[in-house]
Amino acid sequence: MSATEPGRLMLAEMTEQPAVLRRLLTDGAPRIAEVARAIAARGPRFVQLTGRGTSDNAALYAKYLLEIERGLPCGLTSMSTTTAYGAKPDLRDVLVIAVSQSGGSPDLVASTTAAREAGAITLAVTNNPDSPLAAASEYAIDVLAGPEKALPATKTYTAEVLALHLFVTALGGGDGTLAAARLPELAERVLARQDEVRALAARYRFAERMVLTSRGYGYPTAREAALKLMETSYVPALAYSGADLLHGPLAMVDNIFPVIAVVPDGRAGEALRPVLERLTDRGADLMVVGPEKALTGASAGFALPTDDLAEELQPILEIIPLQLLAYEVTRARGQDPDAPRALAKVTETH
Amino acid sequence: MSATEPGRLMLAEMTEQPAVLRRLLTDGAPRIAEVARAIAARGPRFVQLTGRGTSDNAALYAKYLLEIERGLPCGLTSMSTTTAYGAKPDLRDVLVIAVSQSGGSPDLVASTTAAREAGAITLAVTNNPDSPLAAASEYAIDVLAGPEKALPATKTYTAEVLALHLFVTALGGGDGTLAAARLPELAERVLARQDEVRALAARYRFAERMVLTSRGYGYPTAREAALKLMETSYVPALAYSGADLLHGPLAMVDNIFPVIAVVPDGRAGEALRPVLERLTDRGADLMVVGPEKALTGASAGFALPTDDLAEELQPILEIIPLQLLAYEVTRARGQDPDAPRALAKVTETH
Repeated sequence: MSATEPGRLMLAEMTEQPAVLRRLLTDGAPRIAEVARAIAARGPRFVQLTGRGTSDNAALYAKYLLEIERGLPCGLTSMSTTTAYGAKPDLRDVLVIAVSQSGGSPDLVASTTAAREAGAITLAVTNNPDSPLAAASEYAIDVLAGPEKALPATKTYTAEVLALHLFVTALGGGDGTLAAARLPELAERVLARQDEVRALAARYRFAERMVLTSRGYGYPTAREAALKLMETSYVPALAYSGADLLHGPLAMVDNIFPVIAVVPDGRAGEALRPVLERLTDRGADLMVVGPEKALTGASAGFALPTDDLAEELQPILEIIPLQLLAYEVTRARGQDPDAPRALAKVTETH
Repeated sequence: MSATEPGRLMLAEMTEQPAVLRRLLTDGAPRIAEVARAIAARGPRFVQLTGRGTSDNAALYAKYLLEIERGLPCGLTSMSTTTAYGAKPDLRDVLVIAVSQSGGSPDLVASTTAAREAGAITLAVTNNPDSPLAAASEYAIDVLAGPEKALPATKTYTAEVLALHLFVTALGGGDGTLAAARLPELAERVLARQDEVRALAARYRFAERMVLTSRGYGYPTAREAALKLMETSYVPALAYSGADLLHGPLAMVDNIFPVIAVVPDGRAGEALRPVLERLTDRGADLMVVGPEKALTGASAGFALPTDDLAEELQPILEIIPLQLLAYEVTRARGQDPDAPRALAKVTETH
């Protein structure tokens, strides 16, 4: 591929993902476990998660994991409560986790600093251990993804999700590296099927809108896939949990919006089944990303090699064909996935 | 208007809003204050809010209010953590508030029951005091909106928001009725300007997509307006906080998406100003809903009579022209706002 090939940065970074995951499992895990042990000793009772864009989707993943696996009630931070309104919440016993690729967004630094002053235990999960965010936080985890040059974040998303998984597992005294050991190889197998994704992308070359849906651990994947599609191709892509989809937006789906469903191999997939049946009954155009068995009845699909991978680790695999899809749809439309018109790598919101 | 006029149910219920707000301020407030006093005595330290669709937007409003005014860290419930995964979080000292028009959604009842068993203080905010949700909760507040027959919820949204405002104020020992006393009359003044909204609706008759944006207390309004537009007209309407808009989706805005900004008269409006300047610099089509002074430089606008109304009460007023806009856009497109194709009044998600 030439140095001027459209989307070469995004493609190169998607391709790096197996190596990044391997690095986290070997070099990153011990430090993550150390941070988790120190925080566990402080006995947090509630968690607030902060992030924007792609990192907000990684934060949402951690919310599910913390609530299901650790029984810790979680909230996502509404940053303007502190940055615009100067709220002074009582954050004793609260763990505040800020997730950010660059660790450089001023509002994230301000909201973390305010949280620390309000008594919170603060943790930064970033791709830059020397960032202002890491400096402002009591604890920091480096997701070790290496420099990210493409504007649409890909390898930092899967790295953030795996780092958060290792952290939450270690917070409960466990070791997440064994369950995740096969992830890098499974990610390689998915990346090797780019031609298959290119064929699927043809379906969406002329699509003017899309709906993405999932439930449980797959829902952050649906949101991240929608963001990726919008950032690269500008196609309006709306993400709904399967339950929310039935509360209104379903009206738009038949014949108007193609639907992409992320179907986890596990409980969320089962909970999603009646939603998918209703969609196919209504004649919706449905593409499924999930285990082979979940593709039955769909208009199209990408079978994931989930094998015996735990449901809570599948998001790291699920997003990869959808990153590739965003790339391929954008290429098919004659646009450059590396050059979204208004996306700056470090967005300075205050 | 004839009994078969398209949208007559939605229009009738929008028009009832001043009367509903008056009823809440007189008949509803004492009981709400009583519930708030009982809950305050229990000393909750964290709050989890649960709702779907329109009620989820009311819950998000309450999150801002509780965090800013009461200093209570909040989270929005991810229902599938209990309904699909059977999570058993430790909910001691946690107030769980479920917001629902019908109080009949089985998953909301299941998640509230699970929360109560896990030690939470549970509060139902519904339009039906005899509902299963009210029965499952330790405390209940009736929003007194009267039967809602239209499929797109309007009067129950403003009633939920005002009831939550009265509750959160009383939780801190205050009385919210005085500050809100002028709301019903201000709502009447907005409703009297339906012709003005009809003229604005013409702009969107052929729009294929829209972006709504705001910050702080106005952000739930932006989300609710997007939902209303989608439910009635099926136009994909994406809601972003002003800060999130700068993290990616801005690429789509210029010349592609018209933007509707909800500009609160207060701190959130100030925080939003640089975002709006960036939008107008890029030549975006921008309509502003906010105080007269916020309309300068916008392509179009609806001036709200916010006068000296506290910023945290403005959402009850802001949403009304946007409800009317959803109605008028849908009528302009020759569709029936009362007959969205797939919307059931009580959605049975499990």
